[in-house]
Amino acid sequence: MFKLYEYSPSGNCYKIRLLLTQLNIPFSRLEIDITKGESRTSEFLLKNPNGRIPVLEVEPGKFLSESNAIMFYLSEGTEFFPSDRFERAQVMQWLFFEQYSHEPFIATSRFWHMTGKAEEYQEALQQKQAPGYTALGVMEKHLEKNDFFVGDRYTIADIGLFAYTHVAGEGGFDLSGFPAIIKWLDRVQNQHRYISIKQ
Amino acid sequence: MFKLYEYSPSGNCYKIRLLLTQLNIPFSRLEIDITKGESRTSEFLLKNPNGRIPVLEVEPGKFLSESNAIMFYLSEGTEFFPSDRFERAQVMQWLFFEQYSHEPFIATSRFWHMTGKAEEYQEALQQKQAPGYTALGVMEKHLEKNDFFVGDRYTIADIGLFAYTHVAGEGGFDLSGFPAIIKWLDRVQNQHRYISIKQ
Repeated sequence: MFKLYEYSPSGNCYKIRLLLTQLNIPFSRLEIDITKGESRTSEFLLKNPNGRIPVLEVEPGKFLSESNAIMFYLSEGTEFFPSDRFERAQVMQWLFFEQYSHEPFIATSRFWHMTGKAEEYQEALQQKQAPGYTALGVMEKHLEKNDFFVGDRYTIADIGLFAYTHVAGEGGFDLSGFPAIIKWLDRVQNQHRYISIKQ
Repeated sequence: MFKLYEYSPSGNCYKIRLLLTQLNIPFSRLEIDITKGESRTSEFLLKNPNGRIPVLEVEPGKFLSESNAIMFYLSEGTEFFPSDRFERAQVMQWLFFEQYSHEPFIATSRFWHMTGKAEEYQEALQQKQAPGYTALGVMEKHLEKNDFFVGDRYTIADIGLFAYTHVAGEGGFDLSGFPAIIKWLDRVQNQHRYISIKQ
């Protein structure tokens, strides 16, 4: 059975739980408290030398890291990943957008708020506002004309972007100026076998 | 014919030139000077709403962005992308590592040096040293035991990581403490149809 090493409040880990649940694949969970340095122990670094979660143990001793790479692994050949070559690349385009232009601003802001560091990182939080809203603007523009990110149906591109967007408010981002995003969040939450980040 | 919108000194754009050349696929090049804001014009935003290069026009009016997604598009079904499912995901793991844990530190430092902003961004440059060296350490550890990043042969994971690693010195990173990386750089430079970043 797949074993997921995760810090459960993390959106990156939630992506994997959501996809595995929607794929109806059973898995076990092992909590790694990153706020206590548990992803940087010598034991954990054998699983992921980069010291980050999530890590999926696909069979004993065989580990995969990077949330979006894990989603790619799990979704190939399923309805959550397109069969068309250009659409496959478009899914990857949005997932790289997520990790480069979205997550470092929106997820990191939430993490600092969650862990009581908002005051300490006040200036850095402020600097993350503009690029975070730019990323939301790019998403809004796309969703004004499309129900989902790629090929007009729900794929791992949606899961990847949903994970931190739907909790952007917890990092100090106001979604009220993004009506197309709000409608899309609702569409994602209505997908079959949807589970919340708290599950 | 493929058309590449690029800022030629960019390692992200070099990835695409190197792969297209090694695949022996002809392409045309169009220079977008990001230092003059040419990737943020309303005309360019129609090609990539996120305002970044590279962008590959795969057929007239059909655009793909994010360097690693473009490499995925071009390499599927070729010797540069594995056929094994787990290895495919490992390639993606390294490419997401590159964009999240490597490029924001090593590439950004080089860009500031290249564009004469090293003095202005002195403090930020200093902050990028530790995470940049951490990324190099993760690579070194892997390359101590492996000739390439995935499946013991040259793939787009190597191209992705080579692009900014081989010019890390231009951003103030010293590779002399990373002998396995230096040997791997040499292996990459000896691949068939290799071209330099200046070509």
